[in-house]
Amino acid sequence: MNTIGHLFKLTTFGESHGAAIGGVIDGCPSQLKLDFDFIDTELNRRKTAQTSSASQRKESDRIEWLSGLLDGVTLGTPIAFMVRNEDCKSEDYEALKDIYRPSHADFTYEQKFGIRDWRGGGRASARTTLPIVVAGAIAKQILKEKGIKVFAQVVCMGDAEQAKKVGDTVGGVVECRIEGAPAGLGEPMFGKFSAELAHAMFSIPAVKGFEIGDGFALARMKGSEANDTFINKNGKITTLTNHSGGIQGGIANGNDIVFRVAFKPIPSISIPQQTVNRVGEPCEIAIKGRHDVCAMPRAVVLVEALAAMVVVDMMMVVRVL
Amino acid sequence: MNTIGHLFKLTTFGESHGAAIGGVIDGCPSQLKLDFDFIDTELNRRKTAQTSSASQRKESDRIEWLSGLLDGVTLGTPIAFMVRNEDCKSEDYEALKDIYRPSHADFTYEQKFGIRDWRGGGRASARTTLPIVVAGAIAKQILKEKGIKVFAQVVCMGDAEQAKKVGDTVGGVVECRIEGAPAGLGEPMFGKFSAELAHAMFSIPAVKGFEIGDGFALARMKGSEANDTFINKNGKITTLTNHSGGIQGGIANGNDIVFRVAFKPIPSISIPQQTVNRVGEPCEIAIKGRHDVCAMPRAVVLVEALAAMVVVDMMMVVRVL
Amino acid sequence: MNTIGHLFKLTTFGESHGAAIGGVIDGCPSQLKLDFDFIDTELNRRKTAQTSSASQRKESDRIEWLSGLLDGVTLGTPIAFMVRNEDCKSEDYEALKDIYRPSHADFTYEQKFGIRDWRGGGRASARTTLPIVVAGAIAKQILKEKGIKVFAQVVCMGDAEQAKKVGDTVGGVVECRIEGAPAGLGEPMFGKFSAELAHAMFSIPAVKGFEIGDGFALARMKGSEANDTFINKNGKITTLTNHSGGIQGGIANGNDIVFRVAFKPIPSISIPQQTVNRVGEPCEIAIKGRHDVCAMPRAVVLVEALAAMVVVDMMMVVRVL
Amino acid sequence: MNTIGHLFKLTTFGESHGAAIGGVIDGCPSQLKLDFDFIDTELNRRKTAQTSSASQRKESDRIEWLSGLLDGVTLGTPIAFMVRNEDCKSEDYEALKDIYRPSHADFTYEQKFGIRDWRGGGRASARTTLPIVVAGAIAKQILKEKGIKVFAQVVCMGDAEQAKKVGDTVGGVVECRIEGAPAGLGEPMFGKFSAELAHAMFSIPAVKGFEIGDGFALARMKGSEANDTFINKNGKITTLTNHSGGIQGGIANGNDIVFRVAFKPIPSISIPQQTVNRVGEPCEIAIKGRHDVCAMPRAVVLVEALAAMVVVDMMMVVRVL
Repeated sequence: MNTIGHLFKLTTFGESHGAAIGGVIDGCPSQLKLDFDFIDTELNRRKTAQTSSASQRKESDRIEWLSGLLDGVTLGTPIAFMVRNEDCKSEDYEALKDIYRPSHADFTYEQKFGIRDWRGGGRASARTTLPIVVAGAIAKQILKEKGIKVFAQVVCMGDAEQAKKVGDTVGGVVECRIEGAPAGLGEPMFGKFSAELAHAMFSIPAVKGFEIGDGFALARMKGSEANDTFINKNGKITTLTNHSGGIQGGIANGNDIVFRVAFKPIPSISIPQQTVNRVGEPCEIAIKGRHDVCAMPRAVVLVEALAAMVVVDMMMVVRVL
Repeated sequence: MNTIGHLFKLTTFGESHGAAIGGVIDGCPSQLKLDFDFIDTELNRRKTAQTSSASQRKESDRIEWLSGLLDGVTLGTPIAFMVRNEDCKSEDYEALKDIYRPSHADFTYEQKFGIRDWRGGGRASARTTLPIVVAGAIAKQILKEKGIKVFAQVVCMGDAEQAKKVGDTVGGVVECRIEGAPAGLGEPMFGKFSAELAHAMFSIPAVKGFEIGDGFALARMKGSEANDTFINKNGKITTLTNHSGGIQGGIANGNDIVFRVAFKPIPSISIPQQTVNRVGEPCEIAIKGRHDVCAMPRAVVLVEALAAMVVVDMMMVVRVL
Repeated sequence: MNTIGHLFKLTTFGESHGAAIGGVIDGCPSQLKLDFDFIDTELNRRKTAQTSSASQRKESDRIEWLSGLLDGVTLGTPIAFMVRNEDCKSEDYEALKDIYRPSHADFTYEQKFGIRDWRGGGRASARTTLPIVVAGAIAKQILKEKGIKVFAQVVCMGDAEQAKKVGDTVGGVVECRIEGAPAGLGEPMFGKFSAELAHAMFSIPAVKGFEIGDGFALARMKGSEANDTFINKNGKITTLTNHSGGIQGGIANGNDIVFRVAFKPIPSISIPQQTVNRVGEPCEIAIKGRHDVCAMPRAVVLVEALAAMVVVDMMMVVRVL
Repeated sequence: MNTIGHLFKLTTFGESHGAAIGGVIDGCPSQLKLDFDFIDTELNRRKTAQTSSASQRKESDRIEWLSGLLDGVTLGTPIAFMVRNEDCKSEDYEALKDIYRPSHADFTYEQKFGIRDWRGGGRASARTTLPIVVAGAIAKQILKEKGIKVFAQVVCMGDAEQAKKVGDTVGGVVECRIEGAPAGLGEPMFGKFSAELAHAMFSIPAVKGFEIGDGFALARMKGSEANDTFINKNGKITTLTNHSGGIQGGIANGNDIVFRVAFKPIPSISIPQQTVNRVGEPCEIAIKGRHDVCAMPRAVVLVEALAAMVVVDMMMVVRVL
């Protein structure tokens, strides 16, 4: 289950400190001249994000394109790409080999697989989301040609600099808006546009909440407050308000699609914590090494990337792309 | 996309006022003696729910079992079932044939398909969730034998009786808890347990938000507050707190899985509303007929049903079932 | 795994002597006025087939349409349908309850599921292919509008009347031709058009072989004999010969797609046979009751139906439909 | 559609003369110590195959393992691997850039994608099957521990050395036998074991026929000849004959699974042929460069690999693995 999408599909691979991380995009339209500069820009948004809020791992993030391209133009065949893992200091993690970091995936991976790559989070590392940014950039390029825009921003976040001082971390909320998506995207029962988005967003590490339109606030409204009145705006049917976030009955109504994603704080804190080791003995842990204080800036890029991928995918399903 | 599940799969069919609604369950283990009384109990929970908060459609909800059973025991082949739509007063809806009810799926279905069944919500009607209750009851029966419990309750809801008086409706929040699910359920990247749950919950009509563990509240916490300390409890590794809602790195850690689902108010209100008709002309609408004030009681049954289905499905994927 | 298709999907259900057999078609385009007469014609081709070569079960085969239609026009939602099983003489099979009929699925189903519906073949009965004919008829109707034709015929068959006299049965080969399918259908690696067709054909009971173009005969040819020379025919590139059967590199080249399907003889013979019962004791069996001498006439309809479904499905995948 | 398998999945990527070819295996059990020597042995069987019947491309075929492993042990996460394309003489193909080679995929790819990698067959090259050999070797290793064997051999082939002299090529038939697979594998309707095998085999380039058990010969038999009598052999129920090839009703009966795959001759012949170029002008072509006379030796390895993958996958589906 390392694949997302029905027709525009991304399969990712890689652990934080393995040989490489990468992905295979299957279903990308042929004859698309990839905008490598834009892909790099997106990767840089992700990287800068890190730097500014403090992870010091030097990631060159140089993509090697392995297949699916001829002179930079898509062939319609799988586009495989990878980034080598360099600057991997496994020894930083040696001390954590037998200890379960609180609210990390160490324990669950070991329960599931009976083995885990203890070096830097392994498959659960935030680094493994890099391929999503690449696929998202390509999806955005496809959407751009159709006049569809996807952009996200942080709308709520803890005090990162204060947290940094004491070795703590903060979470936050990202809001994303999709403009120009055609009405009709999404499927009635188990392929609702909102369900597809929710599924995609929960694929991002640390995501703990998702809401569309007014979301949880709608639970406290009356029908008369929550309903979006249809109006005729210059000959086009639209709604006066957008409490629904652009989705009604699971299907896009042509308005902006608006949703929010809640991220828990990064669990790697340097403040000493109690935990247990593999054999259940209590021990103390203070996570050293290179870690972010806040995943929000990076989260913005990921939210956009996955949203763009979902839109492209659902457009293909209904064959408007 | 009217199918949910990877190995324990439900395909549903039916419109509110068509001949029948029903489903096909593919992947149910063989040699299971179905507990028909329990299935009826679950359907009654759903129906009683309706009555109490005011929908007066008389639904006999008598299930006809079409296949997959021999003397009430599952054969391992698809279990098809249906419920006839009786007491269908299409004429109630005749007036709505050309009008888009605010925050209903009328407009989006018509945009998507160029046609819609205007009688009672068609495929988008809450009635179409009945098959989910049936499949959910079977999933619960399977889980019961494994000592796994799924139960939900309303944790937030508007003042229904007040709203009823004025022809308005209310929304609410349902919280669900899964007890006894084994650690290790869920897949690393795009098959996270939380993502599967989110996808399932957003398949319920009117769902606009989903959060797991402390959800959106985590976005305002510090890492040191949000982290769940591992402890050794009588020889078993567990956590002192459960901010994570039983899911870490997308994978169940053996704790209770706790999540909440936000429902918008039912959009059918008898208070007059402004809207437009199919050709974009403004008009007024006051929705008559049999409608609920609140979907919450019914929502509880649906949330439980889908949660149980996801657990069974993911247990099959990791082959612990 | 009772579903076939990627975007035009059929899920079937039902056992021979259960309450009903039927199917759910998900992904059928909306706004299609179903040609019910044509569907009946196809079902009659199947039924007449039976009569002529001797199965005497009186199947009314009256379809009940359960969903997905408004006044006979498709809504874009799942089209569910069923046929009641009438004239079910379970007692005919009572004697076979504990005996494994040679080359039937009795033994394998019991090995797989630990239980089987012993009445008339259960899920493995030829009767369970009826829903395929229905879906196939709809697929043919869709293709007809695009000028694409699918037709099959028996090209090899044993002497049925001779076999009938002695209580024996015969097999045969069906050849199918698809005319007018656009070049480009089929996917490069694991979604080859030939692979999709092979998979579909092997879903028909009793199928034991499949070949495309010159098939097995190609194995004995030289490259110089097997190659199809490209020519320019009135401005259109096509091939002089069609050894490839219209598929090159797994992808349709615009020529007629031609393939053959081999059917083993029906295993139900009234000639006494040695076998064993459920506890492994040797016994003799002479299968009484209503059975066909040859499945070929029925097979023709099924081959056409599945071929049409594959073409529609693959046209949707490449978005030319 | 560059992915095969339901739970044991392989996604492949790469063109013959692109940067690399490779694959991602998703669903491989964790804690498996990969037998790299065996994988190399299998790759060598494939390579030696080539040499002996004349392709002179020097392929080092050195696998780079990119993910999913820790000290050679599987982590349960995706196993990505690749082989660099070296010794790529694109100029060999420059002359073919605008010409459609007869019975190659040049024309169909271009019809499908509007673009093709004209260097050495691109995605349709036999080289792209290398990842299948890798995944197959891992599948075989898994099966070996369960006492299941998969082996294939050439049972029919043209006179290769004679063909080589005149610049021609030959086809052939490969027979494969699976020993020790448990009864019960395969699913009733659209997931029949035979259908899964057929689909997999038609994924190999040049495959034009597939038959199981006595296959096409069964079409000429009587039921009394074709039926496999059940017997009790030392307390185990089995069959006296195996005309069915180990599959009845689509489900494995515990006997050897036996099937044959027909390969057309390699279409690259150095004998001059008539064809057309991209604009439909007639021209002559004589394919130079490094080409095999016969794909049979290589085909044997591929047939085994895919068969092993199907067995592992279907064992996972029924949860006996």
